[in-house]
Amino acid sequence: MRFLIIIFFILFTAHQGNSQFEDEKQIKAIYDLALTKGKSYDWLNYLSNQIGGRLSGTVQAQQAVEYTKSLLDSMGIDRVWLQPVMVPKWVRGTPEFAYVETTPGLTTNLPICALGGSVATPLGGIKANIIEVNGIEELATLGAEKITGKIVFYNRPMDPTLISTFEAYSGCVDQRYSGAKEAAKFGAIGVIVRSMNLRLDDLPHTGAMDYGNTVASKRIPAAAISTKGAEFLSATLKLSPNAKFYFKQNCKIFDDVESFNVIGEIRGSKYPDEIMVIGGHLDSWDLGDGSHDDGAGCVQSMEVLRLLKASGYKPQRTIRVVLFMNEENGLRGGRKYAEVAKDKKENHVFALESDAGGFTPRGFSFDCTDAHFEQVNNWRHLFEPYLIHLFVRGGSGADVGLLKDDGIVLAGLRPDSQRYFAHHHAENDTFEHVNKRELELGAAAMTSLVYLFDKYGIVKSP
Amino acid sequence: MRFLIIIFFILFTAHQGNSQFEDEKQIKAIYDLALTKGKSYDWLNYLSNQIGGRLSGTVQAQQAVEYTKSLLDSMGIDRVWLQPVMVPKWVRGTPEFAYVETTPGLTTNLPICALGGSVATPLGGIKANIIEVNGIEELATLGAEKITGKIVFYNRPMDPTLISTFEAYSGCVDQRYSGAKEAAKFGAIGVIVRSMNLRLDDLPHTGAMDYGNTVASKRIPAAAISTKGAEFLSATLKLSPNAKFYFKQNCKIFDDVESFNVIGEIRGSKYPDEIMVIGGHLDSWDLGDGSHDDGAGCVQSMEVLRLLKASGYKPQRTIRVVLFMNEENGLRGGRKYAEVAKDKKENHVFALESDAGGFTPRGFSFDCTDAHFEQVNNWRHLFEPYLIHLFVRGGSGADVGLLKDDGIVLAGLRPDSQRYFAHHHAENDTFEHVNKRELELGAAAMTSLVYLFDKYGIVKSP
Repeated sequence: MRFLIIIFFILFTAHQGNSQFEDEKQIKAIYDLALTKGKSYDWLNYLSNQIGGRLSGTVQAQQAVEYTKSLLDSMGIDRVWLQPVMVPKWVRGTPEFAYVETTPGLTTNLPICALGGSVATPLGGIKANIIEVNGIEELATLGAEKITGKIVFYNRPMDPTLISTFEAYSGCVDQRYSGAKEAAKFGAIGVIVRSMNLRLDDLPHTGAMDYGNTVASKRIPAAAISTKGAEFLSATLKLSPNAKFYFKQNCKIFDDVESFNVIGEIRGSKYPDEIMVIGGHLDSWDLGDGSHDDGAGCVQSMEVLRLLKASGYKPQRTIRVVLFMNEENGLRGGRKYAEVAKDKKENHVFALESDAGGFTPRGFSFDCTDAHFEQVNNWRHLFEPYLIHLFVRGGSGADVGLLKDDGIVLAGLRPDSQRYFAHHHAENDTFEHVNKRELELGAAAMTSLVYLFDKYGIVKSP
Repeated sequence: MRFLIIIFFILFTAHQGNSQFEDEKQIKAIYDLALTKGKSYDWLNYLSNQIGGRLSGTVQAQQAVEYTKSLLDSMGIDRVWLQPVMVPKWVRGTPEFAYVETTPGLTTNLPICALGGSVATPLGGIKANIIEVNGIEELATLGAEKITGKIVFYNRPMDPTLISTFEAYSGCVDQRYSGAKEAAKFGAIGVIVRSMNLRLDDLPHTGAMDYGNTVASKRIPAAAISTKGAEFLSATLKLSPNAKFYFKQNCKIFDDVESFNVIGEIRGSKYPDEIMVIGGHLDSWDLGDGSHDDGAGCVQSMEVLRLLKASGYKPQRTIRVVLFMNEENGLRGGRKYAEVAKDKKENHVFALESDAGGFTPRGFSFDCTDAHFEQVNNWRHLFEPYLIHLFVRGGSGADVGLLKDDGIVLAGLRPDSQRYFAHHHAENDTFEHVNKRELELGAAAMTSLVYLFDKYGIVKSP
């Protein structure tokens, strides 16, 4: 008996060793392919420089749908299709204009841009006293008396002491998203929001805002101001508290239009009904070309399929790339995908999103059970040679997060975040700020994780 | 007795807990200061944009000496001084010029730059057949018969599959450093070396080369060609093996001149004779402004002193910043510093170099004993909240490495390396490619490591 145990132990260990060696070899093959014959950078070049910014409902968004579908079509995978979804259509209109006036006629122009979803100002713009606050909470302290008839200037900066810039963003973005809705309750006639940017520069950063259930007649225009503009405005108000602020924007919301999620899949050889999703969002803001947010995530997701195929790996489960439409100002694509998946009773076991920029990958965050997280943790050593160290619990992504249920492992790629908000939603989110190797390393890390989950399956939760 | 043991255990654990809490607090204070009131970025701005590239022996190198000394003087530290050192003076001269000619009169200009230390071509340039090799090893295979009278074109690229780009650099740089010396042995009349750059672009990257003991009359001119230029030249030679290459450069070596290492220190309160060095190199190549190589390391090193002081920490050991002169083309500053330290029988217990760019810090490499490495490994958890994960054995840096002996812990900052060689020694090593937060995070990581080594001392090697 003891002899048998020893034999078993030797065989088991050999098997484990083999298996680990096989994983190391496969992951090395994935990285080598990504770094020597990668396609993601060329695809992103086209998406960014030949198509450009692709806000939902625009011609560019449709071009992006067609381009990425054609790429998937050319890959020789099992199925490629478009999933229709109605999306909002908000249009910026002509360039916005703003100034601060300390004395009648003495004005300084300031760089602003309308927030996505905002209403226009009246045709001639609005001009009023402007009151600085450190966040939404301060409105109640000031009260309607001090706010009515004024423009509210939200100027709480991102906290530079947080190492993850995404945390710093979370601590500020309520000003942008809900600032107008809340200020309107106190009689404000417009809001100006400090851009969500840790750097001092001249670029205003747009992004989604929401009026909630504010009736149409009470909706006030909202714009972002550059960080340097915000510092200037704040300093001006200290010297001249009665300075007036003028801004003009003629953005407009049109009726919803039809658009699409772009989907392609390799059917699983053994468990075709177990679906693993990899995705990013195809729409972007209009100011830049959306290279980091989220062109990078889209091309990396497509590259996962290509790298699996090119490395000769045959997935046991169905590997599906989903390029979601309308993450930025509606999340309609993500909702539609989750809704259809539910209707069809599809069994999603894993979903990975890349929507944090095309920078050097540092690791992944996981939204899953303890058992699943333990499973992932056992793979850490396979990633260490590639300088992927970060395996943490946390959110996955706005689009794939909607698939959340008990059985699924949700994951998000975590690239280095230091430069991200210097580009996010601004006119300098452009192709030249993406580094080819960093983008490719992200795609390789994603592919390696997908490979491991496909090979070993998702452990059954206790 | 058992009771006493329990009491001891409780006290010991409490002490450990206190100590750990204190370390966490101190490191958090260092990071907060670095990220909110950091000076390194402003200093680098001046060094890069007001002074610029500062090759040894130039006016700019002297300006850099004076500027950084004035910064240290203003810090209110215990001692600031200049350490004289004779340095080589190599001057590039007027811009280089090169073309490939497939048919007489049919030429294509190619971007080149002289390698540092190279001799000039004759005044009218040289024009000859050019022969491509994949590295120095190939010379012997070809033999003098095929090389004599020709220009040798070294075209082995950096290996893109290596995750650390420094490893890829190490695998190629012999072509640049020794290519001319080796090719001359086979009768070559000049060498052209593919730039040490993973990216395809139009910028030639300079860097040190060496003739060894080749007599002056046998020294042949050497230049770098941009990576795109190298690809073009290689493709041209496949179509037209008899194409001629022309290049012209009028660089020159002058007599050595005096320069300085810039040194400042805080004297240790308890063990003043135990010296901890933090440093970078003050000289840079002439094409860019040397922001990443190694302006970043210099300002980070000075910032270590400032952060220690600003956080109210009183070092027990002597903390000394050394800004080394002439790392790039002679290492004279590092040698002089080590020589003087030895002469004075100074006891160096720790040295940390930052000379790998101002990018997001990933960790440190350590050149030390097993016991010392174990000591460092016990601090990993203190760095993890700051996304510093990499603690590896390896080289420290060219300048501090010269202090190596059994008792010292040598360390090197390891920033993310993906973008480094796109800028290294080229005209785009400039200030706008340094991110403020990334630079500051590096300074904070360095300061935290210095704090821990100062507080706990260097364990005695067994």
